[in-house]
Parts: sequence; structure tokens; C-alpha cells
Amino acid sequence: MGEKYQALVHHLMDIRNVNRAEALLGWDQQVNMPPGGSKARASQMATLARIGHEMLTDEQTDLMLKEAHLENPDAPYDSDEASMIRVVREDYRENTCIPSDLIAEHAEATGLGHNIWKEARVKNDFASFVPILKRILDLTRRMADYIGYPDHPYDALLGQYERGMTSKEVKRLFDEHKPPLVNLIARINADDDRVSDDILRRDYAIDKQEQICVDIATALGYDFNRGRIDVATHPFAMGLAQGDVRITTRYNKNFLSPALFGTMHEAGHAMYEQGVSPALEGTPLSRGTSLGVHESQSRMWENMVGRSKGFWGWAFPKLQAMFPESLSDVSLETFYRAINKVGQSYIRVESDEATYNLHIMLRFELELEMVAGNIPVENLPKEWNERFEAFFGIVPPTDTLGVLQDIHWSNGLIGYFPTYALGNMLAAQYYKRALEDHPQIPAEIAQGKFDTLLKWLNVNIHQHGRKFTSAEITQRITGESIKSSEYMKYLDNKYTEIYGL
Amino acid sequence: MGEKYQALVHHLMDIRNVNRAEALLGWDQQVNMPPGGSKARASQMATLARIGHEMLTDEQTDLMLKEAHLENPDAPYDSDEASMIRVVREDYRENTCIPSDLIAEHAEATGLGHNIWKEARVKNDFASFVPILKRILDLTRRMADYIGYPDHPYDALLGQYERGMTSKEVKRLFDEHKPPLVNLIARINADDDRVSDDILRRDYAIDKQEQICVDIATALGYDFNRGRIDVATHPFAMGLAQGDVRITTRYNKNFLSPALFGTMHEAGHAMYEQGVSPALEGTPLSRGTSLGVHESQSRMWENMVGRSKGFWGWAFPKLQAMFPESLSDVSLETFYRAINKVGQSYIRVESDEATYNLHIMLRFELELEMVAGNIPVENLPKEWNERFEAFFGIVPPTDTLGVLQDIHWSNGLIGYFPTYALGNMLAAQYYKRALEDHPQIPAEIAQGKFDTLLKWLNVNIHQHGRKFTSAEITQRITGESIKSSEYMKYLDNKYTEIYGL
Repeated sequence: MGEKYQALVHHLMDIRNVNRAEALLGWDQQVNMPPGGSKARASQMATLARIGHEMLTDEQTDLMLKEAHLENPDAPYDSDEASMIRVVREDYRENTCIPSDLIAEHAEATGLGHNIWKEARVKNDFASFVPILKRILDLTRRMADYIGYPDHPYDALLGQYERGMTSKEVKRLFDEHKPPLVNLIARINADDDRVSDDILRRDYAIDKQEQICVDIATALGYDFNRGRIDVATHPFAMGLAQGDVRITTRYNKNFLSPALFGTMHEAGHAMYEQGVSPALEGTPLSRGTSLGVHESQSRMWENMVGRSKGFWGWAFPKLQAMFPESLSDVSLETFYRAINKVGQSYIRVESDEATYNLHIMLRFELELEMVAGNIPVENLPKEWNERFEAFFGIVPPTDTLGVLQDIHWSNGLIGYFPTYALGNMLAAQYYKRALEDHPQIPAEIAQGKFDTLLKWLNVNIHQHGRKFTSAEITQRITGESIKSSEYMKYLDNKYTEIYGL
Repeated sequence: MGEKYQALVHHLMDIRNVNRAEALLGWDQQVNMPPGGSKARASQMATLARIGHEMLTDEQTDLMLKEAHLENPDAPYDSDEASMIRVVREDYRENTCIPSDLIAEHAEATGLGHNIWKEARVKNDFASFVPILKRILDLTRRMADYIGYPDHPYDALLGQYERGMTSKEVKRLFDEHKPPLVNLIARINADDDRVSDDILRRDYAIDKQEQICVDIATALGYDFNRGRIDVATHPFAMGLAQGDVRITTRYNKNFLSPALFGTMHEAGHAMYEQGVSPALEGTPLSRGTSLGVHESQSRMWENMVGRSKGFWGWAFPKLQAMFPESLSDVSLETFYRAINKVGQSYIRVESDEATYNLHIMLRFELELEMVAGNIPVENLPKEWNERFEAFFGIVPPTDTLGVLQDIHWSNGLIGYFPTYALGNMLAAQYYKRALEDHPQIPAEIAQGKFDTLLKWLNVNIHQHGRKFTSAEITQRITGESIKSSEYMKYLDNKYTEIYGL
């Protein structure tokens, strides 16, 4: 490693230390902080965010990047050196192109917006949310202009979460995905009454739920020496270091699913970050490369593994032994069908594997028009409800259950939603490839062995951290670009069997 | 508030935010962090420490202090403005006077020293600790020279923890304190067999200990809406904001004292920081003014309140109800005597109220000579043991139980020990004054009411934060300077009664 490159990495690690300290402030805020700490905590996080941003956007960073590049002109594309310089150069550009006044104005508007949205949602009062949403949208469009885009301003926003992805590509994917998906859901809905999840809503003591969640996460390969599990209202995974990647979950005494599948979901995110190459630790490359690839990991473990019949062939006897009163009269088949029930939910976060992407498509369509200025903010409830009816055959009875349900827009996260659906597609593509390399994976899962799959993910995805974009990773693994057909095949196979379609 | 003063406060609050983020990193390290996080955590803390130090020692701070002073030339001494400028000016001087090379060298040596000491203590091998302790001592003396002192280099070190206090003053206090204290202990030792604490070493289920600790801390006035209690190997209190001051404790199933009195001790520290004036929140003045005054609060609640007969007249029935198997055959009198047993311990942190200050005096005498260069480091075990015999009549059988027992020197904390003893003296002076103002306090305590005392401490001590030095606080409250006689009177009264001397 040359001297200039070393100086760059040293500088970047300092920045990452500040970012991770801010992450701990955030983790603690959601897990431990007493109510009295909230005001000071917001101020502490703002200070660290500003310092981290100043350190990254300092001209010194640009100079160091240039010097490190001159020192390593021939470093191969996939080397740590070339990747670091390439990725951070774009980080630098993304962070320096927006004037700090605009960033501050955006931070202020979204801080305000979050509180207004919370109240508007409770009161089912979209009108009260309109003025601030207009302002957030306007600021967001101005930010998109500064970031720049070849085609649609939405690309600039989407690219913040999924570097290199375009709205055109997402539109192509969704256009191809929607018809078969709508068709599948229609066929399932015709059979709706044949699956019930009542057995998941019996009595499940929380301390026993905690135990089974730890047991399952450990079995999957989540390393508790380099992590921990806590309770949070809105579960998340958070990396504070490669050796300290934490997950949170929530427990409901009368509903088993949130803790069980939430834990597998967050463990999937966390195992991604636990698996980054130690050589990248402490640098800006030591985390997942994009929201889409991150979601592919969480959804693969939650759904492809965690909602498979093979998995529960191994895990269900353990669950029954833990909850004999609630599960001794339940067969594996009944349990398997219950956890895969397809329902008609108004709420994205409560929706199942089959309908989830449809919820995303609705949001993507609206966002695209909003950003282009084709839909006035006032009309969003009407547009939402019309599309919802077209997609799902039902109309949300209130805006609280409709256009007001998501936190994202109030926080300025416009262009974020598609990554959830991309994650589902990527999960299916990666999982298929893993099974081609190791056909024994399903049989191993049925025995409670997950290390072949985890090791495959470590080697093919995790270790690279942010070295490659989502598209590059996918190309390296599958030789193809992202597509929806594998996910569609997966859904078709699964639900055809469960619903006997 | 003028513009220049406001700019100063804004800058100082940014620094404090960085310091508090670092504090959370430290709290989490001791309470939550999984083992895998330790290396990255040290690096994160070092980065924030450096950034905080750079922000404080930036010439900008000096300029802002000067401008704020010019803007407020006539602000009264005890105003927030004058106090802020006065205290931070000295912070700035203390932090800028030592060259950063020396600070880095000291940080490196103490980082190393801590690990060497840990191993030396386990192996009872003082010789292996000698070279690094010599280096730490040498660096510490050089730092003292940079800080400056009127008389003895020890003053510069002591002043870091107890601003304005001198070794001459401590020597005077200890010289006056030692003879009556040694005399009291000798009289108690002659009666040693009359008090036993065996009943504290029965079975005490940890979940019930947790409950009683929360109940007692709440009753004392520790605000759980602005704090929380967790477990840590080495208990401490930590302020992350005025609305977030946390305590930690430890539980031993077969020894009730550590959790019970440790919790009251840490709650005492925490109530101090919870009580600082909201007008100072987020500034460098929003914490306790010195280690001595801090310790006066923890020791007052732990000992003067928490080890009093009145307190247990109220609390003992509750404790008995919680632990009927272990306490139903125990009288209040027996319990009260048990928690006030005076023993012959080699270990400072296990010692009782009577012998504690003697342990401190021994360390102070040695440190004074060490810093003056009069005792070669190699001779410390011999010097320690000779003094220990002279003070306590017994000789530590190993260095592990003697000169190697404390973490402080290995961490570079030389000049720190006296503050523990000063805290005991101040506690007695303040408590006496509170009782003069409110003679009903002991009767209230016997009914489980603590708010008169807490309010008195809030008004007279807590609200001021760091506005006044320890000496100024003491003068304001008692009209006198610090002295040992009140503490001596307190000990005499207490033990004369218990031991029937």
C-alpha cells in the first residue's frame, strides 16, 4: 500500500468513525434512551452528521483521492485500491454537488415534516400534510438537479440508494413483473378462504419467543459475539463495526410472526455486514453496497429460507416443544400454510410475499409523476386510491390506511421504495444461483444447516462490501442483469402448491 | 444574550455534543457492546476525542472567548455569561498548554500501561509494571511542567480533577485528619468481633435486588424518565444529557451490599447532573464542578442517608418483605450494624467509611514523593507495605493486594486519589449545613421522604453546574473552606454508638 493511499484510507476511517458514532446515537435512541434524552440526542446527531459531512466534503478529500489515484494508476478494477478510489470519488461528488444551504433547508423541512406527518396520519388529515410535502418535494427536486441525471430527475434520487439504477430500468422491470403478479394474486384471492393464520395468533409467551429467536438467528449463522439482539418499535439492523452488527425485533404476545420473521429478516441484513472482508473494515466500503442488495439478503433469509417447508421441517418440532399449549394440535402443513397466507392488506409492511411488490409499484408510479410535476400533491389521495383499486380490487377506507401510511416522504426519502422490490427480485436470482452451485442447500436447510448457503453469500456478495454496484454484483454472480422472472417463478411454484392453483 | 456570547455558546455546545457522543461510546462499551466490537470502538473513541480536543483548542475558541468577554465586560461573577467565559478560558488554557505530541505519547503509554498493569496484577509481578510506570510518571511530570504550578508539580495534576486545590491544602487536611481517624479505627478494631455482616451474604435473588434498587433510587429522587439503570462490571454514572443521566450497578447473588449501596452511590452522582440548571444544558458548564464535589454527592446518599438508621427504619421492612427467607430472623439493629461493619481490608474499594480515607492518605503520600522524584518506582512496593503497616497494623501479603490494586496510575490518573477523601469531607460539611437549614430532614428520611434534602442540594449545589469551583461552592454554602472535622465528628458519633466505644 502506497503512502498516499494509506493517507486517504486513514482520513476515510476517521470519517467512518464519526458516522458510526452517529449510528450508535441512533441505535441507542431507539433501544435504550430515556424519554428525557430526545432533544439533546437530536442535537448530538446533527453535530456529528455535520462534522462527518464536513470531513468528507473537505477539499482535502478530493486532493487525497487524486494523489491516491496517481499513486495507483494501474490498480485492477476489482482491487481494494481502485474500488476505494472509485466509490469514494462518487461519494464525494454526491456530497459536494448540493449546496450546504439546500441540505440544511432539506434537513429542517424533513424534521418538521416527520412530526406533521405523524399527526396527520393519526388524524387521517392529508390536507394538513400537503404544504410541507410540497416543500419537501420542491427541495428534493432541486437536490436532484444538483446531483444531475441523464434522463429523469427521479434517477438522481433513486441513485442515492441504488447507485447506477435508473427509473427507466425500474419501469421496465415493473412493467414486465406486474401482469403475471396481478394474475397470480387474482388466482390466490379466488381461493382465499382455504388458508388461515389463526394459529399464529394464539398465546406465545414473550420470553420463549426471545429464546427461539436467538436460537434461530444463531443457527442461521448470525454471530452473537459480533452482535446482539434488542427490542425496538420499528425493528432494524445496524452496523457499528464489522465486529458489532446489531439487530432489533419486537414481540407480540398474541402474534408470533413479527418476532419470528422480523428476526430472520434483520439477521439477514446483519450477516451481510458481518461478512464484509476484514481488509475493508473501518473504511467506507465496509458495509452493504445498496439498499436493494441489502434487502435481497434480508428477504432471502426471511422468505426463501425462513418461510420454506424444509426449514420448518427442522424448526417446527422445536417451536412446538417451546409452545406445547399453542402448537401441539397443529401440523407442520397447517403451520407452513399459515405463515404463507396471502391476504388483502392495505398496509405495505403487513403484506405478504405475493402482494408486496405490488404495493411498491403503486408508490413508484406515483413518485415518478410527483417528481416530474405531473401530479399535484393535493391529488395524491385520489390517485393512490384509484391505483389501489386497480391493483388490489379494494379501496382504502381512510388515508391513514392509504397514502399516509408510510414514513418515507415525510423524511425526504423519495426514490427509496423501488429498492424493496429490487431486493425481492435479486434474492430470487441469487438464491437460484446458489442452488445451482450447491444443489444440496435445501436438504441441508431441512436439517438445520445453513453454512453452505451463508458461505456462498459471504464469498459471492458479503466480502465485497461496497466495492461493486448492485448491477456489477448481479452480473458477476448470475452473468445477467436484474430481472423479475426468477422471483415470479419462485412465487408461482410456492403458491401453486400451497393454494393448489 | 449578545451575538458574540451566543456564537461562543453555539461553538461550545458543538464540542459538548462530540464529548457526549464519545461518552455514549464509552457507556455502551461497558454495558452493551459485544466482544467483537472492542477494537473498532477504541478507534471510534480516539477519533471523537481528537476531534473534540481540536475543536476546543482551535484558535477560534480563544478569539470567541475574547470577543464574548468584550461584549460582557461587566457581567457579574456569578452570571452564566461571566462563569462560562471564566471556566472555559481555563479549560482552553489547560488543553492548549500541553503540546499535542506529548498528549499523544501519554495516550499511547497509558493505553499500553493499562494492559501491562492488568497482567501484572493478575501475576503479582510488580517488576513487569516498573518500566511503563516510569515512562508514564515521566510523561506526567512533563505535562505538569506545561500546565504550570506555583509550588509543587503535584498541584498541576490535582488541579485537573479539583480546580484550585493544592497539595499543600490536601496535606494540611490529611495531617489534621489522620491522628483522630487512626485513633478511632484502633478503638473499633479492639471491638472488632462485636459486628458481623454475615447476614448480608445470604441468598438474595438478583431479580429482587434489581427491583429494590429501582424502588430505592426512585424514592431518593433519581428520575428514571431522565435516566436508566444497567449492569456493569465496574459501576459508574454517566451524563449523556441533562435529560439522560444513566447509572450502572452490579449484582451478587450472595452479597447484598454491592448492588444496594452501589446504586445509591451512583444515583447520588446522577442526581447531581440531573439537577444542573436547564439554562446551562448542552454547555461545558452542564455537569458536576469537580470530582470532590461529585463524590460528596454520591457519598452523602450512599452513607449519610443510605447507611443511617433512620433510612433503614423506613426501608428495612420493605427489604424484609422482598427477602423473607434471608431476613425474617434479622432485626433492624442487626442489619444496621452489619451494613456499618468496620473491617481490616487491604483493598480500598472494599473498605468501609471509617478506613476509606486512610487508604487515600497512603496513596497521596506516595504520589507526592513519586512526582517529586523522591521515591524510585522500584521501591513503591516496599514503601506501600511499610506505610500500610503503620496505618492499619497489617501488611499486604502480595502486591496484588497492595501497590498493584488500583487501576489509576496505569491510566495516567496521578493526582486523582485525594478527591475521594475530599468528597467524604465535603459530604459531611454540606449535610450538616442542610440539616441546619432543615432540621426535619432526618425525620423525613425515616419516613422515606427525601425531597427536602434533594431540593436543598439542587438549589445550593446542583443547579450551578461548573459555574463555581469546589472551594467557591463550599464557601457559599458553609462560609468556610473544606475541613475534615465535620466528617470526623460524623464518624465518631456513628461508630461510638454502633461499637459502644
